[in-house]
Amino acid sequence: MLVVGELINASRKPIAEMIEAQDADAIKKVAREQRQAGADYIDVNAGIFVGKEADYLKWLVQNVQEVVDCPCCIDSPDPKAIEAALTVHRGVAMINSISLEKQRYDALLPVISGTDLKVVALCMSDDGMPETTDDRLKIAEKLINGLTRANIPLDNIYVDPLVQPVGTKDTFGIEFLNAVEAIMTGFAGVHTICGLSNISYGLPARKFLNQTFAVMAIAKGLDALIINPLDQRMMACITAAETLAGRDKYCTNYLKAYRKNKFDF
Amino acid sequence: MLVVGELINASRKPIAEMIEAQDADAIKKVAREQRQAGADYIDVNAGIFVGKEADYLKWLVQNVQEVVDCPCCIDSPDPKAIEAALTVHRGVAMINSISLEKQRYDALLPVISGTDLKVVALCMSDDGMPETTDDRLKIAEKLINGLTRANIPLDNIYVDPLVQPVGTKDTFGIEFLNAVEAIMTGFAGVHTICGLSNISYGLPARKFLNQTFAVMAIAKGLDALIINPLDQRMMACITAAETLAGRDKYCTNYLKAYRKNKFDF
Repeated sequence: MLVVGELINASRKPIAEMIEAQDADAIKKVAREQRQAGADYIDVNAGIFVGKEADYLKWLVQNVQEVVDCPCCIDSPDPKAIEAALTVHRGVAMINSISLEKQRYDALLPVISGTDLKVVALCMSDDGMPETTDDRLKIAEKLINGLTRANIPLDNIYVDPLVQPVGTKDTFGIEFLNAVEAIMTGFAGVHTICGLSNISYGLPARKFLNQTFAVMAIAKGLDALIINPLDQRMMACITAAETLAGRDKYCTNYLKAYRKNKFDF
Repeated sequence: MLVVGELINASRKPIAEMIEAQDADAIKKVAREQRQAGADYIDVNAGIFVGKEADYLKWLVQNVQEVVDCPCCIDSPDPKAIEAALTVHRGVAMINSISLEKQRYDALLPVISGTDLKVVALCMSDDGMPETTDDRLKIAEKLINGLTRANIPLDNIYVDPLVQPVGTKDTFGIEFLNAVEAIMTGFAGVHTICGLSNISYGLPARKFLNQTFAVMAIAKGLDALIINPLDQRMMACITAAETLAGRDKYCTNYLKAYRKNKFDF
Protein backbone atom coordinates (compact mmCIF):
# COMPACT_ATOMS: atom_id res chain seq x y z
CA MET A 1 0.00 0.00 0.00
CA LEU A 2 1.29 3.37 -1.01
CA VAL A 3 0.27 6.06 1.49
CA VAL A 4 0.07 9.74 0.54
CA GLY A 5 -0.09 11.97 3.63
CA GLU A 6 -2.85 14.49 2.96
CA LEU A 7 -2.42 17.01 5.74
CA ILE A 8 -0.44 19.80 4.02
CA ASN A 9 -3.44 21.09 2.12
CA ALA A 10 -4.32 24.79 2.13
CA SER A 11 -8.02 23.98 2.20
CA ARG A 12 -7.35 23.10 5.87
CA LYS A 13 -7.40 26.39 7.78
CA PRO A 14 -4.32 25.85 10.02
CA ILE A 15 -2.25 24.95 6.96
CA ALA A 16 -3.48 28.00 5.03
CA GLU A 17 -2.37 30.14 7.97
CA MET A 18 1.06 28.49 8.09
CA ILE A 19 1.52 29.13 4.38
CA GLU A 20 0.42 32.75 4.54
CA ALA A 21 2.68 33.39 7.53
CA GLN A 22 5.46 31.50 5.71
CA ASP A 23 5.92 29.50 8.88
CA ALA A 24 8.42 26.95 7.57
CA ASP A 25 8.93 25.28 10.95
CA ALA A 26 5.23 24.52 11.32
CA ILE A 27 5.02 23.01 7.83
CA LYS A 28 8.15 20.96 8.46
CA LYS A 29 6.62 19.58 11.65
CA VAL A 30 3.50 18.38 9.80
CA ALA A 31 5.68 16.82 7.10
CA ARG A 32 7.92 15.07 9.61
CA GLU A 33 5.01 13.69 11.63
CA GLN A 34 3.34 12.25 8.55
CA ARG A 35 6.55 10.63 7.35
CA GLN A 36 7.20 9.11 10.77
CA ALA A 37 3.64 7.74 10.79
CA GLY A 38 4.24 5.89 7.54
CA ALA A 39 3.53 8.25 4.61
CA ASP A 40 5.35 7.34 1.38
CA TYR A 41 4.56 10.70 -0.26
CA ILE A 42 3.75 14.07 1.31
CA ASP A 43 0.90 15.83 -0.47
CA VAL A 44 1.39 19.59 -0.96
CA ASN A 45 -1.53 21.78 -1.96
CA ALA A 46 -1.78 25.58 -2.10
CA GLY A 47 -4.83 25.69 -4.33
CA ILE A 48 -6.73 28.39 -2.46
CA PHE A 49 -4.09 31.05 -3.14
CA VAL A 50 -5.06 32.37 -6.55
CA GLY A 51 -2.12 34.03 -8.28
CA LYS A 52 0.33 32.82 -5.64
CA GLU A 53 -0.21 29.08 -5.94
CA ALA A 54 2.94 28.36 -7.94
CA ASP A 55 5.22 30.25 -5.53
CA TYR A 56 3.63 28.72 -2.47
CA LEU A 57 3.83 25.20 -3.94
CA LYS A 58 7.55 25.66 -4.57
CA TRP A 59 8.00 26.93 -1.03
CA LEU A 60 6.10 23.91 0.34
CA VAL A 61 8.12 21.40 -1.68
CA GLN A 62 11.40 22.95 -0.58
CA ASN A 63 10.53 23.05 3.07
CA VAL A 64 8.97 19.59 3.15
CA GLN A 65 11.97 18.03 1.42
CA GLU A 66 14.36 19.68 3.84
CA VAL A 67 13.08 17.38 6.58
CA VAL A 68 11.78 14.20 4.95
CA ASP A 69 13.52 11.69 2.72
CA CYS A 70 10.49 10.96 0.53
CA PRO A 71 8.98 12.62 -2.54
CA CYS A 72 5.99 14.96 -2.65
CA CYS A 73 2.63 14.50 -4.24
CA ILE A 74 2.15 17.81 -6.05
CA ASP A 75 -1.53 18.50 -5.76
CA SER A 76 -2.94 21.10 -8.14
CA PRO A 77 -5.34 21.36 -11.05
CA ASP A 78 -2.99 23.94 -12.62
CA PRO A 79 -0.20 22.60 -14.90
CA LYS A 80 1.77 25.85 -14.50
CA ALA A 81 1.85 25.52 -10.73
CA ILE A 82 2.88 21.86 -11.07
CA GLU A 83 5.71 22.78 -13.45
CA ALA A 84 6.96 25.42 -11.04
CA ALA A 85 6.96 22.97 -8.12
CA LEU A 86 8.79 20.36 -10.19
CA THR A 87 11.69 22.76 -10.78
CA VAL A 88 12.63 22.48 -7.09
CA HIS A 89 11.47 18.93 -6.34
CA ARG A 90 14.11 16.28 -5.71
CA GLY A 91 13.45 12.65 -6.62
CA VAL A 92 10.42 11.32 -8.47
CA ALA A 93 7.28 13.26 -7.61
CA MET A 94 3.68 12.17 -7.89
CA ILE A 95 1.38 14.55 -9.80
CA ASN A 96 -2.18 14.90 -8.50
CA SER A 97 -3.81 15.04 -10.97
CA ILE A 98 -4.52 14.79 -14.65
CA SER A 99 -8.14 14.26 -15.68
CA LEU A 100 -10.10 13.96 -18.90
CA GLU A 101 -11.20 17.62 -18.70
CA LYS A 102 -9.84 18.82 -22.01
CA GLN A 103 -8.13 22.02 -20.89
CA ARG A 104 -6.41 20.33 -17.96
CA TYR A 105 -5.51 17.25 -19.98
CA ASP A 106 -4.02 19.14 -22.92
CA ALA A 107 -1.97 21.42 -20.70
CA LEU A 108 -0.62 18.78 -18.32
CA LEU A 109 0.13 15.95 -20.74
CA PRO A 110 3.23 17.63 -22.27
CA VAL A 111 4.60 18.26 -18.75
CA ILE A 112 4.47 14.61 -17.76
CA SER A 113 4.90 12.94 -21.15
CA GLY A 114 7.95 10.69 -21.31
CA THR A 115 8.93 11.42 -17.70
CA ASP A 116 9.14 8.89 -14.88
CA LEU A 117 6.71 10.89 -12.74
CA LYS A 118 3.91 9.06 -10.94
CA VAL A 119 0.57 10.40 -12.15
CA VAL A 120 -2.84 10.37 -10.51
CA ALA A 121 -5.43 9.99 -13.27
CA LEU A 122 -8.68 11.34 -11.89
CA CYS A 123 -11.89 9.97 -13.38
CA MET A 124 -13.45 13.30 -14.22
CA SER A 125 -14.35 14.68 -17.65
CA ASP A 126 -16.02 17.73 -19.13
CA ASP A 127 -19.28 15.79 -18.82
CA GLY A 128 -18.95 16.14 -15.04
CA MET A 129 -18.50 13.67 -12.22
CA PRO A 130 -18.99 9.96 -12.90
CA GLU A 131 -21.76 8.22 -10.94
CA THR A 132 -21.71 4.58 -12.04
CA THR A 133 -18.98 1.97 -12.34
CA ASP A 134 -19.37 2.18 -16.09
CA ASP A 135 -18.99 5.99 -16.17
CA ARG A 136 -15.71 5.59 -14.31
CA LEU A 137 -14.46 2.76 -16.49
CA LYS A 138 -15.00 4.72 -19.68
CA ILE A 139 -12.99 7.68 -18.38
CA ALA A 140 -10.31 5.42 -16.88
CA GLU A 141 -9.82 3.63 -20.17
CA LYS A 142 -9.36 6.88 -22.10
CA LEU A 143 -6.94 8.24 -19.50
CA ILE A 144 -4.89 5.04 -19.35
CA ASN A 145 -4.71 4.82 -23.13
CA GLY A 146 -3.72 8.48 -23.46
CA LEU A 147 -1.08 8.27 -20.75
CA THR A 148 0.51 5.08 -22.06
CA ARG A 149 0.58 6.57 -25.56
CA ALA A 150 2.50 9.47 -23.98
CA ASN A 151 5.09 6.95 -22.78
CA ILE A 152 3.97 6.82 -19.18
CA PRO A 153 4.28 3.21 -18.03
CA LEU A 154 1.19 1.57 -16.48
CA ASP A 155 3.13 1.14 -13.24
CA ASN A 156 3.34 4.93 -12.87
CA ILE A 157 -0.38 5.50 -13.35
CA TYR A 158 -2.65 5.77 -10.29
CA VAL A 159 -6.28 5.87 -11.38
CA ASP A 160 -8.54 7.73 -8.93
CA PRO A 161 -12.10 6.54 -9.64
CA LEU A 162 -13.44 9.54 -7.67
CA VAL A 163 -15.24 8.91 -4.42
CA GLN A 164 -18.73 10.43 -4.18
CA PRO A 165 -20.80 10.79 -0.97
CA VAL A 166 -22.93 7.76 -0.11
CA GLY A 167 -25.21 10.15 1.78
CA THR A 168 -26.11 11.77 -1.55
CA LYS A 169 -26.96 8.50 -3.29
CA ASP A 170 -26.87 5.13 -1.56
CA THR A 171 -25.25 3.36 -4.51
CA PHE A 172 -22.25 5.71 -4.65
CA GLY A 173 -20.16 3.47 -2.38
CA ILE A 174 -20.60 0.22 -4.28
CA GLU A 175 -20.31 1.90 -7.71
CA PHE A 176 -16.90 3.23 -6.68
CA LEU A 177 -15.80 -0.11 -5.19
CA ASN A 178 -16.79 -2.05 -8.27
CA ALA A 179 -14.91 0.46 -10.41
CA VAL A 180 -11.74 -0.19 -8.40
CA GLU A 181 -12.09 -3.90 -9.02
CA ALA A 182 -12.89 -3.51 -12.72
CA ILE A 183 -9.90 -1.19 -13.26
CA MET A 184 -7.49 -3.43 -11.34
CA THR A 185 -8.56 -6.56 -13.23
CA GLY A 186 -9.09 -4.90 -16.61
CA PHE A 187 -5.75 -3.06 -16.76
CA ALA A 188 -3.30 -5.39 -15.05
CA GLY A 189 -0.31 -3.45 -13.73
CA VAL A 190 -2.08 -0.12 -13.21
CA HIS A 191 -2.71 1.22 -9.70
CA THR A 192 -5.79 2.72 -8.05
CA ILE A 193 -5.79 5.50 -5.49
CA CYS A 194 -8.33 7.70 -3.74
CA GLY A 195 -9.02 10.13 -0.96
CA LEU A 196 -11.71 8.96 1.43
CA SER A 197 -13.37 11.87 3.15
CA ASN A 198 -15.94 12.49 0.39
CA ILE A 199 -17.58 9.13 1.02
CA SER A 200 -18.86 10.22 4.44
CA TYR A 201 -19.78 13.80 3.52
CA GLY A 202 -23.04 14.79 5.23
CA LEU A 203 -23.14 11.69 7.47
CA PRO A 204 -22.22 11.28 11.14
CA ALA A 205 -19.34 9.16 12.52
CA ARG A 206 -17.27 10.11 9.49
CA LYS A 207 -13.90 8.80 10.66
CA PHE A 208 -15.36 5.36 11.31
CA LEU A 209 -17.13 5.33 7.95
CA ASN A 210 -13.95 6.40 6.15
CA GLN A 211 -11.95 3.62 7.83
CA THR A 212 -14.57 1.04 6.88
CA PHE A 213 -14.57 2.25 3.28
CA ALA A 214 -10.77 2.05 3.07
CA VAL A 215 -10.90 -1.60 4.15
CA MET A 216 -13.57 -2.38 1.54
CA ALA A 217 -11.60 -0.65 -1.21
CA ILE A 218 -8.51 -2.69 -0.32
CA ALA A 219 -10.62 -5.85 -0.53
CA LYS A 220 -11.50 -4.77 -4.07
CA GLY A 221 -7.86 -4.21 -5.02
CA LEU A 222 -7.07 -0.56 -4.21
CA ASP A 223 -3.33 -0.19 -3.60
CA ALA A 224 -2.80 3.50 -2.76
CA LEU A 225 -4.56 5.94 -0.43
CA ILE A 226 -4.48 9.66 0.21
CA ILE A 227 -5.13 9.84 3.94
CA ASN A 228 -4.19 11.33 7.27
CA PRO A 229 -1.43 8.95 8.40
CA LEU A 230 -1.72 10.32 11.95
CA ASP A 231 -5.08 8.54 12.21
CA GLN A 232 -3.71 5.48 13.98
CA ARG A 233 -6.80 3.33 13.53
CA MET A 234 -6.86 4.11 9.80
CA MET A 235 -3.25 2.98 9.48
CA ALA A 236 -4.01 -0.17 11.48
CA CYS A 237 -7.03 -0.87 9.26
CA ILE A 238 -4.79 -0.63 6.21
CA THR A 239 -2.20 -2.97 7.71
CA ALA A 240 -4.81 -5.57 8.66
CA ALA A 241 -6.66 -5.32 5.35
CA GLU A 242 -3.44 -5.75 3.40
CA THR A 243 -2.62 -8.87 5.41
CA LEU A 244 -6.07 -10.29 4.75
CA ALA A 245 -5.83 -9.38 1.06
CA GLY A 246 -2.79 -11.63 0.67
CA ARG A 247 -0.29 -8.77 0.37
CA ASP A 248 1.73 -9.47 3.48
CA LYS A 249 4.22 -12.31 3.12
CA TYR A 250 4.12 -14.51 6.23
CA CYS A 251 2.02 -11.75 7.91
CA THR A 252 5.32 -10.00 8.64
CA ASN A 253 3.97 -6.44 8.49
CA TYR A 254 1.01 -7.35 10.65
CA LEU A 255 3.20 -8.87 13.35
CA LYS A 256 5.65 -5.98 13.16
CA ALA A 257 2.82 -3.47 13.57
CA TYR A 258 1.51 -5.41 16.56
CA ARG A 259 4.91 -5.41 18.23
CA LYS A 260 5.09 -1.64 17.72
CA ASN A 261 1.72 -1.32 19.53
CA LYS A 262 -0.01 -0.06 16.39
CA PHE A 263 -3.18 -1.92 17.38
CA ASP A 264 -3.41 -0.32 20.83
CA PHE A 265 -6.29 2.04 20.33
CA MET B 1 -27.19 -8.90 6.54
CA LEU B 2 -28.40 -11.95 8.37
CA VAL B 3 -26.72 -12.29 11.78
CA VAL B 4 -26.43 -15.63 13.57
CA GLY B 5 -25.51 -15.18 17.25
CA GLU B 6 -22.73 -17.67 17.93
CA LEU B 7 -22.42 -17.60 21.71
CA ILE B 8 -24.46 -20.66 22.76
CA ASN B 9 -21.80 -23.12 21.71
CA ALA B 10 -20.63 -25.87 24.05
CA SER B 11 -17.07 -25.49 22.85
CA ARG B 12 -17.09 -22.33 25.00
CA LYS B 13 -16.42 -23.42 28.58
CA PRO B 14 -19.04 -21.27 30.37
CA ILE B 15 -21.72 -22.54 27.98
CA ALA B 16 -20.65 -26.17 28.46
CA GLU B 17 -21.01 -25.66 32.21
CA MET B 18 -24.47 -24.12 31.84
CA ILE B 19 -25.57 -27.07 29.72
CA GLU B 20 -24.17 -29.70 32.07
CA ALA B 21 -25.76 -27.95 35.05
CA GLN B 22 -28.99 -27.61 33.02
CA ASP B 23 -28.99 -23.96 34.01
CA ALA B 24 -31.88 -22.81 31.81
CA ASP B 25 -31.89 -19.27 33.18
CA ALA B 26 -28.26 -18.71 32.22
CA ILE B 27 -28.84 -20.00 28.68
CA LYS B 28 -31.94 -17.86 28.35
CA LYS B 29 -29.95 -14.79 29.36
CA VAL B 30 -27.34 -15.40 26.65
CA ALA B 31 -30.11 -15.94 24.10
CA ARG B 32 -31.96 -12.78 25.10
CA GLU B 33 -28.84 -10.61 25.05
CA GLN B 34 -27.90 -11.78 21.56
CA ARG B 35 -31.41 -11.20 20.25
CA GLN B 36 -31.49 -7.70 21.74
CA ALA B 37 -28.11 -6.94 20.16
CA GLY B 38 -29.47 -7.76 16.71
CA ALA B 39 -29.15 -11.52 16.09
CA ASP B 40 -31.61 -12.92 13.55
CA TYR B 41 -30.89 -16.53 14.51
CA ILE B 42 -29.53 -17.98 17.75
CA ASP B 43 -26.95 -20.71 17.14
CA VAL B 44 -27.23 -23.74 19.43
CA ASN B 45 -24.37 -26.25 19.64
CA ALA B 46 -23.86 -29.12 22.07
CA GLY B 47 -21.29 -30.94 19.99
CA ILE B 48 -18.86 -31.78 22.78
CA PHE B 49 -21.37 -34.00 24.62
CA VAL B 50 -20.95 -37.35 22.90
CA GLY B 51 -24.02 -39.51 23.37
CA LYS B 52 -26.01 -36.67 24.90
CA GLU B 53 -25.83 -34.15 22.03
CA ALA B 54 -29.37 -34.77 20.74
CA ASP B 55 -30.98 -34.37 24.16
CA TYR B 56 -28.97 -31.27 24.98
CA LEU B 57 -29.73 -29.68 21.60
CA LYS B 58 -33.45 -30.19 22.19
CA TRP B 59 -33.12 -28.66 25.63
CA LEU B 60 -31.24 -25.68 24.20
CA VAL B 61 -33.79 -25.06 21.44
CA GLN B 62 -36.69 -25.21 23.90
CA ASN B 63 -35.10 -22.84 26.39
CA VAL B 64 -33.86 -20.39 23.81
CA GLN B 65 -37.23 -20.21 22.10
CA GLU B 66 -38.99 -19.60 25.40
CA VAL B 67 -37.39 -16.16 25.53
CA VAL B 68 -36.67 -15.03 21.97
CA ASP B 69 -39.00 -14.60 19.01
CA CYS B 70 -36.53 -15.78 16.38
CA PRO B 71 -35.49 -19.18 15.04
CA CYS B 72 -32.41 -21.17 15.99
CA CYS B 73 -29.46 -22.16 13.90
CA ILE B 74 -29.07 -25.85 14.77
CA ASP B 75 -25.36 -26.43 14.74
CA SER B 76 -24.24 -30.04 14.55
CA PRO B 77 -22.41 -32.38 12.20
CA ASP B 78 -24.81 -35.16 13.29
CA PRO B 79 -28.05 -35.50 11.29
CA LYS B 80 -29.67 -37.47 14.16
CA ALA B 81 -29.06 -34.66 16.62
CA ILE B 82 -30.41 -32.14 14.11
CA GLU B 83 -33.56 -34.22 13.59
CA ALA B 84 -34.11 -34.42 17.33
CA ALA B 85 -33.76 -30.66 17.73
CA LEU B 86 -36.15 -30.03 14.84
CA THR B 87 -38.91 -31.96 16.62
CA VAL B 88 -39.14 -29.19 19.23
CA HIS B 89 -38.15 -26.16 17.12
CA ARG B 90 -40.82 -23.59 16.27
CA GLY B 91 -40.64 -21.61 13.04
CA VAL B 92 -38.14 -22.14 10.24
CA ALA B 93 -34.75 -23.21 11.57
CA MET B 94 -31.38 -22.88 9.92
CA ILE B 95 -29.30 -26.07 9.75
CA ASN B 96 -25.54 -25.71 10.22
CA SER B 97 -24.40 -27.58 8.24
CA ILE B 98 -24.43 -29.96 5.34
CA SER B 99 -21.12 -30.54 3.55
CA LEU B 100 -19.84 -32.65 0.70
CA GLU B 101 -18.43 -35.26 3.11
CA LYS B 102 -20.29 -38.32 1.83
CA GLN B 103 -21.52 -39.75 5.12
CA ARG B 104 -22.77 -36.39 6.39
CA TYR B 105 -24.28 -35.44 3.04
CA ASP B 106 -26.14 -38.71 2.53
CA ALA B 107 -27.55 -38.72 6.05
CA LEU B 108 -28.62 -35.07 6.19
CA LEU B 109 -30.04 -34.60 2.69
CA PRO B 110 -33.22 -36.64 3.35
CA VAL B 111 -33.85 -34.63 6.54
CA ILE B 112 -33.82 -31.27 4.74
CA SER B 113 -35.02 -32.31 1.27
CA GLY B 114 -38.23 -30.56 0.23
CA THR B 115 -38.43 -28.56 3.49
CA ASP B 116 -38.29 -24.79 3.80
CA LEU B 117 -35.36 -24.99 6.21
CA LYS B 118 -32.42 -22.64 5.70
CA VAL B 119 -29.28 -24.69 5.11
CA VAL B 120 -25.62 -23.80 5.60
CA ALA B 121 -23.65 -25.59 2.87
CA LEU B 122 -20.10 -25.90 4.17
CA CYS B 123 -17.34 -26.13 1.56
CA MET B 124 -15.73 -29.26 2.94
CA SER B 125 -15.39 -32.66 1.27
CA ASP B 126 -13.80 -36.03 1.97
CA ASP B 127 -10.70 -34.62 0.27
CA GLY B 128 -10.27 -32.29 3.27
CA MET B 129 -10.37 -28.52 3.66
CA PRO B 130 -10.31 -26.34 0.55
CA GLU B 131 -7.37 -23.94 0.22
CA THR B 132 -7.91 -22.02 -3.01
CA THR B 133 -10.85 -20.12 -4.48
CA ASP B 134 -11.16 -22.85 -7.08
CA ASP B 135 -11.23 -25.66 -4.47
CA ARG B 136 -14.13 -23.86 -2.80
CA LEU B 137 -16.00 -23.17 -6.03
CA LYS B 138 -15.92 -26.82 -7.06
CA ILE B 139 -17.41 -27.94 -3.75
CA ALA B 140 -19.92 -25.08 -3.71
CA GLU B 141 -21.16 -25.96 -7.16
CA LYS B 142 -21.73 -29.61 -6.23
CA LEU B 143 -23.48 -28.64 -3.00
CA ILE B 144 -25.72 -26.06 -4.67
CA ASN B 145 -26.63 -28.45 -7.47
CA GLY B 146 -27.37 -31.27 -5.03
CA LEU B 147 -29.46 -29.09 -2.76
CA THR B 148 -31.50 -27.52 -5.53
CA ARG B 149 -32.13 -30.99 -6.98
CA ALA B 150 -33.48 -31.90 -3.53
CA ASN B 151 -35.98 -29.04 -3.91
CA ILE B 152 -34.22 -26.59 -1.65
CA PRO B 153 -34.58 -23.14 -3.23
CA LEU B 154 -31.40 -21.12 -3.83
CA ASP B 155 -32.71 -18.47 -1.47
CA ASN B 156 -32.56 -20.97 1.42
CA ILE B 157 -28.95 -21.99 0.75
CA TYR B 158 -26.12 -20.26 2.68
CA VAL B 159 -22.77 -21.37 1.27
CA ASP B 160 -19.96 -21.24 3.84
CA PRO B 161 -16.70 -21.10 1.84
CA LEU B 162 -14.78 -22.05 5.02
CA VAL B 163 -12.44 -19.53 6.58
CA GLN B 164 -8.89 -20.75 7.11
CA PRO B 165 -6.22 -19.00 9.24
CA VAL B 166 -4.20 -16.36 7.40
CA GLY B 167 -1.43 -17.00 9.93
CA THR B 168 -1.06 -20.51 8.49
CA LYS B 169 -0.82 -19.36 4.88
CA ASP B 170 -0.82 -15.73 3.82
CA THR B 171 -3.12 -16.30 0.83
CA PHE B 172 -5.90 -17.89 2.90
CA GLY B 173 -7.68 -14.56 3.38
CA ILE B 174 -7.85 -13.50 -0.25
CA GLU B 175 -8.65 -17.02 -1.50
CA PHE B 176 -11.69 -17.04 0.79
CA LEU B 177 -12.75 -13.50 -0.21
CA ASN B 178 -12.50 -14.27 -3.90
CA ALA B 179 -14.56 -17.42 -3.35
CA VAL B 180 -17.34 -15.33 -1.76
CA GLU B 181 -17.39 -13.07 -4.79
CA ALA B 182 -17.28 -15.93 -7.30
CA ILE B 183 -20.14 -17.75 -5.55
CA MET B 184 -22.31 -14.64 -5.25
CA THR B 185 -21.85 -13.71 -8.90
CA GLY B 186 -21.84 -17.27 -10.28
CA PHE B 187 -25.00 -18.47 -8.51
CA ALA B 188 -27.25 -15.41 -8.40
CA GLY B 189 -29.77 -15.72 -5.58
CA VAL B 190 -27.70 -17.92 -3.29
CA HIS B 191 -26.31 -16.56 0.00
CA THR B 192 -22.87 -16.78 1.59
CA ILE B 193 -22.17 -17.08 5.30
CA CYS B 194 -19.18 -17.67 7.54
CA GLY B 195 -17.80 -17.61 11.03
CA LEU B 196 -14.80 -15.34 11.42
CA SER B 197 -12.64 -16.42 14.30
CA ASN B 198 -10.61 -18.94 12.28
CA ILE B 199 -9.13 -16.18 10.13
CA SER B 200 -7.14 -14.76 13.06
CA TYR B 201 -6.14 -18.07 14.67
CA GLY B 202 -2.55 -17.88 15.91
CA LEU B 203 -2.26 -14.10 15.40
CA PRO B 204 -2.50 -11.23 17.90
CA ALA B 205 -5.22 -8.52 17.98
CA ARG B 206 -7.74 -11.12 16.87
CA LYS B 207 -10.92 -9.11 17.43
CA PHE B 208 -9.63 -6.27 15.29
CA LEU B 209 -8.53 -8.66 12.54
CA ASN B 210 -11.91 -10.43 12.60
CA GLN B 211 -13.75 -7.10 12.28
CA THR B 212 -11.57 -6.06 9.37
CA PHE B 213 -12.16 -9.39 7.63
CA ALA B 214 -15.93 -9.10 8.08
CA VAL B 215 -15.88 -5.71 6.33
CA MET B 216 -13.82 -7.12 3.46
CA ALA B 217 -16.14 -10.10 3.05
CA ILE B 218 -19.16 -7.77 2.88
CA ALA B 219 -17.35 -5.77 0.19
CA LYS B 220 -17.09 -9.03 -1.75
CA GLY B 221 -20.80 -9.81 -1.36
CA LEU B 222 -21.13 -11.87 1.84
CA ASP B 223 -24.64 -11.46 3.24
CA ALA B 224 -24.73 -13.53 6.43
CA LEU B 225 -22.38 -13.85 9.40
CA ILE B 226 -22.05 -16.15 12.41
CA ILE B 227 -20.69 -13.79 15.06
CA ASN B 228 -20.86 -12.54 18.61
CA PRO B 229 -23.52 -9.83 18.33
CA LEU B 230 -22.46 -8.43 21.71
CA ASP B 231 -19.26 -7.20 20.03
CA GLN B 232 -20.50 -3.66 19.48
CA ARG B 233 -17.74 -2.64 17.11
CA MET B 234 -18.32 -5.73 14.99
CA MET B 235 -22.01 -4.87 14.69
CA ALA B 236 -21.12 -1.26 13.82
CA CYS B 237 -18.63 -2.47 11.19
CA ILE B 238 -21.39 -4.56 9.62
CA THR B 239 -23.82 -1.63 9.58
CA ALA B 240 -21.27 0.71 8.00
CA ALA B 241 -20.08 -1.87 5.47
CA GLU B 242 -23.64 -2.63 4.40
CA THR B 243 -24.30 1.06 3.87
CA LEU B 244 -21.14 1.40 1.79
CA ALA B 245 -22.02 -1.75 -0.17
CA GLY B 246 -25.24 -0.15 -1.37
CA ARG B 247 -27.51 -2.26 0.80
CA ASP B 248 -28.96 0.54 2.92
CA LYS B 249 -31.67 2.56 1.21
CA TYR B 250 -31.15 6.27 1.92
CA CYS B 251 -28.57 5.22 4.58
CA THR B 252 -31.53 4.69 6.91
CA ASN B 253 -29.98 1.89 8.95
CA TYR B 254 -26.74 3.79 9.31
CA LEU B 255 -28.49 6.90 10.61
CA LYS B 256 -30.72 4.84 12.90
CA ALA B 257 -27.66 3.08 14.36
CA TYR B 258 -25.98 6.44 14.92
CA ARG B 259 -28.99 7.81 16.74
CA LYS B 260 -28.98 4.72 18.97
CA ASN B 261 -25.32 5.47 19.83
CA LYS B 262 -24.10 2.29 18.13
CA PHE B 263 -20.95 4.08 16.97
CA ASP B 264 -19.97 5.23 20.47
CA PHE B 265 -17.05 2.93 21.17
